[in-house]
Amino acid sequence: MPENSRKKVVVLGAGFAGLNAALKLRHMPVDVTIVDRRNHHTFQPLLYQVALAVLTPSDIAQSVRTIFRGSRNVEVLLDEAAGVDVAARKVLLKSGGALSYDYLIVATGSTHSYFGHEEWAALAPGLKELEDAIEIRRRVLLTFELAERAAVEQGVHPPLNFVIVGGGPTGVELAGAISDIARLFMNQDFRHIDPSRARVIIVEGEKDILSAYPPDLRVKATQQLNQIGVEVQTGKHVTDIQPGYVMIGDERIDAAVTLWAAGVKASPLGATCGFACDKRGAVEVDDFMNPAGHPEVFVCGDMAHFMQDGKRVPGVAQPAIQMGKHAAAMIAADLAGKPRKPFRYFDKGDMATIGRKAAVARVAWPFHANLSGAPAWVAWLLVHIYFLVGFRNRIAVVFAWAWTYFTFNSGARLITGSVELPGWDAVEKD
Amino acid sequence: MPENSRKKVVVLGAGFAGLNAALKLRHMPVDVTIVDRRNHHTFQPLLYQVALAVLTPSDIAQSVRTIFRGSRNVEVLLDEAAGVDVAARKVLLKSGGALSYDYLIVATGSTHSYFGHEEWAALAPGLKELEDAIEIRRRVLLTFELAERAAVEQGVHPPLNFVIVGGGPTGVELAGAISDIARLFMNQDFRHIDPSRARVIIVEGEKDILSAYPPDLRVKATQQLNQIGVEVQTGKHVTDIQPGYVMIGDERIDAAVTLWAAGVKASPLGATCGFACDKRGAVEVDDFMNPAGHPEVFVCGDMAHFMQDGKRVPGVAQPAIQMGKHAAAMIAADLAGKPRKPFRYFDKGDMATIGRKAAVARVAWPFHANLSGAPAWVAWLLVHIYFLVGFRNRIAVVFAWAWTYFTFNSGARLITGSVELPGWDAVEKD
Repeated sequence: MPENSRKKVVVLGAGFAGLNAALKLRHMPVDVTIVDRRNHHTFQPLLYQVALAVLTPSDIAQSVRTIFRGSRNVEVLLDEAAGVDVAARKVLLKSGGALSYDYLIVATGSTHSYFGHEEWAALAPGLKELEDAIEIRRRVLLTFELAERAAVEQGVHPPLNFVIVGGGPTGVELAGAISDIARLFMNQDFRHIDPSRARVIIVEGEKDILSAYPPDLRVKATQQLNQIGVEVQTGKHVTDIQPGYVMIGDERIDAAVTLWAAGVKASPLGATCGFACDKRGAVEVDDFMNPAGHPEVFVCGDMAHFMQDGKRVPGVAQPAIQMGKHAAAMIAADLAGKPRKPFRYFDKGDMATIGRKAAVARVAWPFHANLSGAPAWVAWLLVHIYFLVGFRNRIAVVFAWAWTYFTFNSGARLITGSVELPGWDAVEKD
Repeated sequence: MPENSRKKVVVLGAGFAGLNAALKLRHMPVDVTIVDRRNHHTFQPLLYQVALAVLTPSDIAQSVRTIFRGSRNVEVLLDEAAGVDVAARKVLLKSGGALSYDYLIVATGSTHSYFGHEEWAALAPGLKELEDAIEIRRRVLLTFELAERAAVEQGVHPPLNFVIVGGGPTGVELAGAISDIARLFMNQDFRHIDPSRARVIIVEGEKDILSAYPPDLRVKATQQLNQIGVEVQTGKHVTDIQPGYVMIGDERIDAAVTLWAAGVKASPLGATCGFACDKRGAVEVDDFMNPAGHPEVFVCGDMAHFMQDGKRVPGVAQPAIQMGKHAAAMIAADLAGKPRKPFRYFDKGDMATIGRKAAVARVAWPFHANLSGAPAWVAWLLVHIYFLVGFRNRIAVVFAWAWTYFTFNSGARLITGSVELPGWDAVEKD
C-alpha cells in the first residue's frame, strides 16, 4: 500500500486502553499518532506502592516514546486534545495544532470526582498519576517526621491518624499499605513516637467495602484489615473535609492525612465532542465501542460506558486493555474487508492487596475461586509482575519487592518538596 | 557512664560531613541528634545522573532515619537551625524548638550563588538537591518533546540549545550527559526532529574549564567534550539570563534550557552565629576546625574555610567526609582525656565524567597519575559505587548503569510536574 493512502489512526491517551491499542496497531499498515499530556504510561495498579514508598516512580512508569522507539509507523506527541471536530475528522490540540484522522481511539481515562466539593482536592489528594503518588508519599512520611518533632520539642505524642475516604480497591490498598509502613517498616526508626500507634480509618458510604467483590471476600477483606489494625467504618458519608480533620455528620475525626478514594469521573472530552454521556461523563457506546453515528471513533477504557449482560463493564485495567486491543482489531478487520466483531469483556477476575501476605482475589479464569490471605497475595504478585510494561521495570519491581519483603525496609522513603503539612497544627493541638 | 552525664552532640546537616560524623559518633558513648531540613542524605556526585534520567532519585538518596535505625544513641530531627546561641550552647530551630549541646557540628553545606542576580535562579536552576535534579530532568526532556510538537504542528525544527553556565566538574558532567542523551539515547525516539542536532554549550569565565585539575587534564577534558559535540567557550562571562536566551556581553545565545553551575555560597548559618566568615560565607576555622574561641563547635565540609599549605581545602565530597570523621575523632579524644589532633586533608584526587567511556581523573592515592578517557571512566565508576551509601543503592545503581550501558536506554525518563517551559516561545520563534 503506498504511504500516502495509509489510514491515519489517532490515539488519545496512553493509559492501558490507548497503549494496548497502539501496541497492536504498530504491526498494521497504518500511521499512528499517540497523544498524551504526560510523557509516560503509568501502571496505575501499583501507584499506591509508590505512594507508600515501596516502589519508586520509574519502577511503574515508562516513557511512551521509548516503548514505541522501534515502531516507525507510530509517533508520540506530548499534547492534549482540547476537542474533536468529528464532522471534519480532526483532533484540536491544546497547544493550538490539529491532527486529522481516519480512525480515532478515545481513551483519556478518568479523574477523581469530589462530588462537587472541589475545595476538598487540595486537602484529600486522590491517586491517579505519579504526581499524586509522590504527594501522598510526602504527606504520609511527613506526618511521622512532624510527630517526632512535636514529641522532641513539645513532649507530646500527636495522634497519627490517616483517614481514607472510600473503601474500593484503591482505598483498601492504601489503608493496608499505610498500616504496614507504620507497624512493620518504621518501628525502629523513631525514638520519641511509636509509629504503630497510627490509626488508619476507611470511611465507606456503602454498607460494605469492596462492593464489586463477592460477599465472602468482603468479609475476609474486612477481617484482614482489622487484623492489621485498620478500622473500617461503613455506611458513613463524609460531610466535610478541613485541614486536620474530617466530618462524618456531626462526628469529627482527626486526620493528619486524608486521602480520597471515593469517586471518579470520566475525562470531559466525551461531552466536549458532543457524544451522549452517562452521569459520570463516560461516553455511551454500542457493542462495537462506537458512539452513535461514528463507526470511525472508538471509545475505550474508563471513558466508555459499555453495557454487557445488563451491567456496566467496570473502569479497571483489564477491560481497558481488552478494549484497546479490540479497537485495533476492528480497524484490522476494516482494512481486511472483513466484518467487525462486537466487543465482549472477558472477565478474569479482580484482586486487591491488603498488606504483607494478605489480599483478596476473585479468580474467574482459568478456574473459578475466591482466594484470600497468602494465596491471594502470591497470585496478586505474579499477575502484577506479568502485566508490568517493560522488562527493566519487571526486574526493578521484583528486586524492590524482594528487598522490602526480607529487610522490612524500602528504598524510596523520600520526602521531596515542601516539608509542611496542611492542618498539622489542628492535629497537633489535640 | 550513667545516661544523664553523657555528652550531647548536635549535628547540623546530613550531607557528607554531618553523616560521616554521625556514623562515627554512633559507636561512642554520646547522645547524637542530627538535624536536617530534608529526610534524606543525597549522594551529590551522582545528582547529575538523576538530572539526566540515568538514575532515579531513590538510587542516590537514603532516608537518614533509616541509616541510623539501629543506633539507639542517634536521633534524627526534620528541622532547620535558625541560629545558634553559642554562649548558652543551644541550637534554635526554625520550628520554634531548641536543642542544647555539649558539642556542635555545623555542616549545613552550600547552595548556588547567582552573584547577586537572584532573578536568574528560576531561569537557570543549579544542581544541589534532588528537587533540582528532577526540575532539570523535566526541562531537558521537555525541550525535546516541545520541539517534536513544534515540528509536527508548525513544520519547523526549533534549535535545541542547552547552555551551561560554569565549567567546573558539575558543568562538565551536565554538558557531557546532555550530549550523551541527545546523541546516543534519543536518536530513535523522535520522528520529526533530530535530537543529535542539540547544541550543548559550556560558558566559563576563567581561561580554562576544570580549573582545579592539572593543565594536561583540562586539555584532555576539552578534547573529549569537543568529540561528543559540546562547545566550550572560556574566558566569557554571562551578563544576563532571560527566558529563552543568555547574553554574553552583546552576544545572544539562544537557550531552550539554561543550567547554573557557576558559583556556590556557604549556608548563611555561619554568619548568623556570629563566626568570622570568608566572602563566600564559609566559617574561618583553625587547625582543629573550630571557629575562634569555640572549641566545642566544629565546622565541617563546604561550610568550613580551612586553609592547608596556603590553599583552601576544596568544597567537595572527600574533604567533607574526612572533616566529619575527624570532628567525631576529636570528641572521642576529649572523652578519653587525650589531646586533639589537628585536621589534615588527605587528598586522594579528583575525577569528573564527560560521557560514555570518557572522563578525567587526577589520582593522588595510592599512586600519582593523571588518567583520561576509558581508564578514568572505569576508575570513576568503581569509586562512585564504593562510596554510595547503602547496599541496596549500590545494587540499584550498578543495575541501572549496566542497563543503560548495554541497551542505550534508561529507566527514569519521566517528566513530572508542569509540561511548560519558561521562554520556549522565545526559542521557538527563532
